[in-house]
Amino acid sequence: MKIKKEFLAVISILLLAVVPIISFANTEAMQGAGHSDPIAPVILALIIILLAAKIGGELFEKINQPAVLGELISGMVIGNLFLFSGGIFDFGQMFESESINMLAGLGVMILLFQVGLESNIKELMRVGISSLSVAIIGVVVPLILGYYICVLIIPEAGFNAHLFVGATLTATSVGITARVLKDLDKLRTPEAKIILGAAVIDDILGLIILSIVSGIIISGSVSVGTVVYTSITSFAFLFISIIIGLKAAPLIGKKVSGMKVEGMKIVTAFLFLFTMAYLADMIGLAMIVGAFAAGLILDDVSFVNKKEHHIEVLVKPLYCIFVPVFFVLMGIQVKLDVFLDPKIIAIALAITVVSVIGKQLCGIGVRCKNASKLVVGIGMISRGEVGLIFAGVGKGLGVIDDSLFGAIVIMVILTTLITPPLLKWSIARNDRKLGLSKTE
Amino acid sequence: MKIKKEFLAVISILLLAVVPIISFANTEAMQGAGHSDPIAPVILALIIILLAAKIGGELFEKINQPAVLGELISGMVIGNLFLFSGGIFDFGQMFESESINMLAGLGVMILLFQVGLESNIKELMRVGISSLSVAIIGVVVPLILGYYICVLIIPEAGFNAHLFVGATLTATSVGITARVLKDLDKLRTPEAKIILGAAVIDDILGLIILSIVSGIIISGSVSVGTVVYTSITSFAFLFISIIIGLKAAPLIGKKVSGMKVEGMKIVTAFLFLFTMAYLADMIGLAMIVGAFAAGLILDDVSFVNKKEHHIEVLVKPLYCIFVPVFFVLMGIQVKLDVFLDPKIIAIALAITVVSVIGKQLCGIGVRCKNASKLVVGIGMISRGEVGLIFAGVGKGLGVIDDSLFGAIVIMVILTTLITPPLLKWSIARNDRKLGLSKTE
Repeated sequence: MKIKKEFLAVISILLLAVVPIISFANTEAMQGAGHSDPIAPVILALIIILLAAKIGGELFEKINQPAVLGELISGMVIGNLFLFSGGIFDFGQMFESESINMLAGLGVMILLFQVGLESNIKELMRVGISSLSVAIIGVVVPLILGYYICVLIIPEAGFNAHLFVGATLTATSVGITARVLKDLDKLRTPEAKIILGAAVIDDILGLIILSIVSGIIISGSVSVGTVVYTSITSFAFLFISIIIGLKAAPLIGKKVSGMKVEGMKIVTAFLFLFTMAYLADMIGLAMIVGAFAAGLILDDVSFVNKKEHHIEVLVKPLYCIFVPVFFVLMGIQVKLDVFLDPKIIAIALAITVVSVIGKQLCGIGVRCKNASKLVVGIGMISRGEVGLIFAGVGKGLGVIDDSLFGAIVIMVILTTLITPPLLKWSIARNDRKLGLSKTE
Repeated sequence: MKIKKEFLAVISILLLAVVPIISFANTEAMQGAGHSDPIAPVILALIIILLAAKIGGELFEKINQPAVLGELISGMVIGNLFLFSGGIFDFGQMFESESINMLAGLGVMILLFQVGLESNIKELMRVGISSLSVAIIGVVVPLILGYYICVLIIPEAGFNAHLFVGATLTATSVGITARVLKDLDKLRTPEAKIILGAAVIDDILGLIILSIVSGIIISGSVSVGTVVYTSITSFAFLFISIIIGLKAAPLIGKKVSGMKVEGMKIVTAFLFLFTMAYLADMIGLAMIVGAFAAGLILDDVSFVNKKEHHIEVLVKPLYCIFVPVFFVLMGIQVKLDVFLDPKIIAIALAITVVSVIGKQLCGIGVRCKNASKLVVGIGMISRGEVGLIFAGVGKGLGVIDDSLFGAIVIMVILTTLITPPLLKWSIARNDRKLGLSKTE
């Protein structure tokens, strides 16, 4: 925890240094100059968010931590500057505009689109029974444990909140584990293949669970009908869109490649992304389910036009600008004063412990003899992006209040912080074991 | 006009084909499904805008017309679908949300940033006296002529409107002329160098005039003080930012290149763009002035990090997605029913004629003996993007009403349509003349 504190301090100082300028800009000038453009406040908010994201991200990368943690914590610094500065600096409603929320929404869609682009359907079908059973255990166990721990410690929050917290604990973050495995040059081990396969299946299961849980909360009751309807819709949506997509996408790609207008490739990709997200919303699923499906389908499209860059190269600049807006905004929405209540800290720690234990049972699902159950279990711990997305949806639905939201963000931060060192340790232990068995 | 009508028809039919689906989506489903994401309507509007932009753009490119005209006319089709369909299809307030306006604003900033990136300060300083005098004549004459023609035919519109229409006629569109010259392989002729140099200076002068005119309108009176203040501020802003920028940008570039976080280059570029736009707004200039200055400065920065793509490659995907939003939205805002009043058609034609004549006097500025005055004059006709931006600002300030806005858009369309054939004709004529004088 020492490192985290130091960095919080450094970030605070850096941010505090730019704040006087920004505060000046925000008050003096905007009241002074008569003809301020109506989008000026949005641009100012974007400047602060991007600056915070990059300062935070850079500092965390420097200490070999994922940049996303830096973005989240910078956001927490900005969102609680009023608290830290004793009420001197106040961004007020700056980050609560329709436009900023829309840009964050765009960011999370681009993120899921990218995750979809990076997952290959055909490879996914090959990862086999181990990944599937690891994924299913990794979703079911934390869901149940999360639900019951909430029933135990916050019975007053009600069924919907209990269910939603459970759902938040299901999702595994592919990015962080993949990054560590890559850094250790262990991407080709059986454990790595199982973990990464399971993480992708986890994403899909997680999105389906999100749809089901949201459906239950909106319809107001756990009817078998709602659960069955949402499950079938979600599965059908993903299945049908993948089947049709795999057939139609190459045709569209070919057609688009013949067009003259510049930028057809990226515009087609985004039209596709937006359309899938909108269709998902229409049939009552989360827009990100559609965004993920869009990425999954486009993954296999080969646009014939080789003059333009690869689709992932074209998406990256949009990713770099908009995805951090989502994470910083998530951080901003954490109200640190909720932690003055020791109960909230207890909840945060309790769901962190539950989410770690829940994923350890994943090892049972490993069917491959030469793969370490421990490494797989640890590799599944980090929650990251998807957990935050869930928490955001829950907040939007009014199920998750400020305290629970804060507790979930802390859980995401803690699980993400402990995964890399634990993973390194478990792999080293496993290597030693294998080494020993060889010399025997 | 035959071609335009045909294409309007084709676009209408294409758009009408997608509209039933969209209308269904817009009414049935959104009322039916309980939990629609709040950003779903924005995404739907984006789908329609991008689809319209690309269908319109593609059709116009196919007949060798600039894509921007297609975007504008598609927008007009969408905006007047209610009229065309006899009230059956109605998008209602869909395109009037804060978010869509913000995205269009982002688009126009990215556009000016890109224009700045493409203009090189050092080259600009070398183009010499011909370009400068051509540019100044091309700004002053249409401004005066535009002002007086309005005083003559619409005296009731008042001083502010007269002045603003005059200002709208000043700006030359670099893109269209450059495209034609490139297609004819004439980019290295003295005429081409003079025209392109003048067009860039025109952009700068145009932005300064926009600031002055806006300043006059907001302060409510033509005081010498306002004009002097705004002129000095504008010049000083551009001058100081360029001087400081040229010194500081390489240092920032070097610093940024050493950073670990991915996408630092594009994020730094956008942070710089947003900051300059915000600073311009703070001192009372238009945000696009800042965006242009940002592009002008970054043009000379060589980021040391060669691992990432060139800055223009990184900006392009963002350009392709957001810039069309601006042009389609401009088209949507043209209410075609204003043309039921023959007076508005008369105004549109009058300002078109004035804007063509005004630029012909530019030839006087040509100091280079072997350059054709006619070619230069014709090359300066097309108004394009910047004229539209002016009209948009005027509409925002409440100076330009729906009828005048429609007339200006028609002027932009007509000047842009006639430039390519006239330019081809005048260059061929000039080539024949040079050929004849050689054989004599």
